[in-house]
Amino acid sequence: MRCSFCDKQAVYFKRISGVAYCKNCFIKHVEDRVRWTINKGKLFDWNDHIVLAVSGGKDSVVMMKIVSKIEKNFPHVKLTAITIDEGFNGYRAEGIKIAKKFSSIFGVEHLIFSFKDFYGYTLKEMVDKAEKRGSPYHPCTYCGVLRRKILNVKSKEIGATKIATAHNLDDEAQTILMNILRGDIERLIESFRIESQECEGFVPRVKPMKYIPEREIALYAYYNGIELYSSECPFSRLSLRGEIRSFLNDYEMRHPDVKFSIVSSFEAFINKIINKENSIKIKLNRCRYCGEPTTRDICRACELLEDLKVL
Amino acid sequence: MRCSFCDKQAVYFKRISGVAYCKNCFIKHVEDRVRWTINKGKLFDWNDHIVLAVSGGKDSVVMMKIVSKIEKNFPHVKLTAITIDEGFNGYRAEGIKIAKKFSSIFGVEHLIFSFKDFYGYTLKEMVDKAEKRGSPYHPCTYCGVLRRKILNVKSKEIGATKIATAHNLDDEAQTILMNILRGDIERLIESFRIESQECEGFVPRVKPMKYIPEREIALYAYYNGIELYSSECPFSRLSLRGEIRSFLNDYEMRHPDVKFSIVSSFEAFINKIINKENSIKIKLNRCRYCGEPTTRDICRACELLEDLKVL
Repeated sequence: MRCSFCDKQAVYFKRISGVAYCKNCFIKHVEDRVRWTINKGKLFDWNDHIVLAVSGGKDSVVMMKIVSKIEKNFPHVKLTAITIDEGFNGYRAEGIKIAKKFSSIFGVEHLIFSFKDFYGYTLKEMVDKAEKRGSPYHPCTYCGVLRRKILNVKSKEIGATKIATAHNLDDEAQTILMNILRGDIERLIESFRIESQECEGFVPRVKPMKYIPEREIALYAYYNGIELYSSECPFSRLSLRGEIRSFLNDYEMRHPDVKFSIVSSFEAFINKIINKENSIKIKLNRCRYCGEPTTRDICRACELLEDLKVL
Repeated sequence: MRCSFCDKQAVYFKRISGVAYCKNCFIKHVEDRVRWTINKGKLFDWNDHIVLAVSGGKDSVVMMKIVSKIEKNFPHVKLTAITIDEGFNGYRAEGIKIAKKFSSIFGVEHLIFSFKDFYGYTLKEMVDKAEKRGSPYHPCTYCGVLRRKILNVKSKEIGATKIATAHNLDDEAQTILMNILRGDIERLIESFRIESQECEGFVPRVKPMKYIPEREIALYAYYNGIELYSSECPFSRLSLRGEIRSFLNDYEMRHPDVKFSIVSSFEAFINKIINKENSIKIKLNRCRYCGEPTTRDICRACELLEDLKVL
């Protein structure tokens, strides 16, 4: 297969759009998509101090590479990478090494903060304690909640104005679906709204990678010599998220646009709520053909019947 | 296993609640649940003329049995069962026979209307025509849209004030999930709102069976001598809904409350939107322990850490 743009040997075929990419056009595609996400969502201002949450995993290192490249054109923007050391049997050691190496390569200041220093316990100590005492919480709850808190507190301390996390399209679609299956629609909407509004005390969070599928990030990392940090989180198999991930990947085979559909329609909806466009009364018209009530000009039934006549 | 209420031999175990039922207690449980749904949602008024949409399938016949039993206590309520004959290779013939038989048993007036009389074509003629001419629509689109229209028009003609359909918990959870996977969140919310508000020209639709799982309806039908009308819709395998149904049934094995969670949390959310409770600004407090912003009194992070100390 040949690249749809420059006719070189293609290395990636995007099913959702039917476009093939050679290596160089693929790299450009991913970077353009991140730039588009930043512009469309107005994620950054010309004078932001942006904290990049960098675990050392491929997603966060790719984010650091692309965002630092884009923001080179904005001399008043300051970037700081922050890595959180949860402390779990050396699980993060490799990630910290990678984060340090690439921060230096991309010329980004790098800070490390640990659970032990901040909370007095490592994550391992917390999980052991919780397990021994029969806590109802999954280890991911401690890890997620407590990482977010350090990140917010430390970002405020250094005067940051944005926190960028490397959540990708797969992460976002999984989160939405997971909350819906758990019956947590309101919590989901609340967290989206807290993120997308200015809330005193929270450094606003942005997700420049939210429209990039995970597999494209992996391929981008591979072509850019970013090692795939192999030590998987020891709890990822335990989690509900793993189950949702499998379902979405399987479903995507037959419906290639499912992840993007979930994320973009949910965002459009949240924006409507925030912008108060969400009018309470529904305005109904009368169908021009049959007089039945409809939100359209011609009702859906008459439209289908008309189609049958015309087709 | 013994019945949790009367100690007779149990015939059904409800995993979501851990309760076992004998035959009689099970029948009472289903009927109580329908009564609860009607009361909680204020589905019916004391003087309603209720159209029951009865296809002849187990769900609609069970609905007719339970609703007619409940409404016997309301002498000003009038019930009319309506069956729509789509006209598809005699697919509905058996259903019409069953609907007629049980309407007469339960003492409910029964009317039949056909696509052919109303639209000039049977569903079979429409689908053939659409297929030959390359229509982009799935047969279910014609069937669903056009059945709803006849039902609304005929209900108005006979002066009905409510239309009750027999959608069960499985149907409702599937519909919500299907729309989310397709990226149709706004359409989903709009249709929920049209149903739950008074909209001129639409006879209000209610779903008294929406909290009853499909398997409980099947068992209830079995114990009440209601035949399981076996001729499956010839298109049901083609449809996206079939895929979602399998996923939810599989997922339910490990998370027994998934269907109820989806439906009830979605409803709570819609009601919030309708009742304008959906305040645009989020009110944030400061955590009593650490001063970080939170929607609670003590932030989630401090709560988790406190739990670890206390546990």
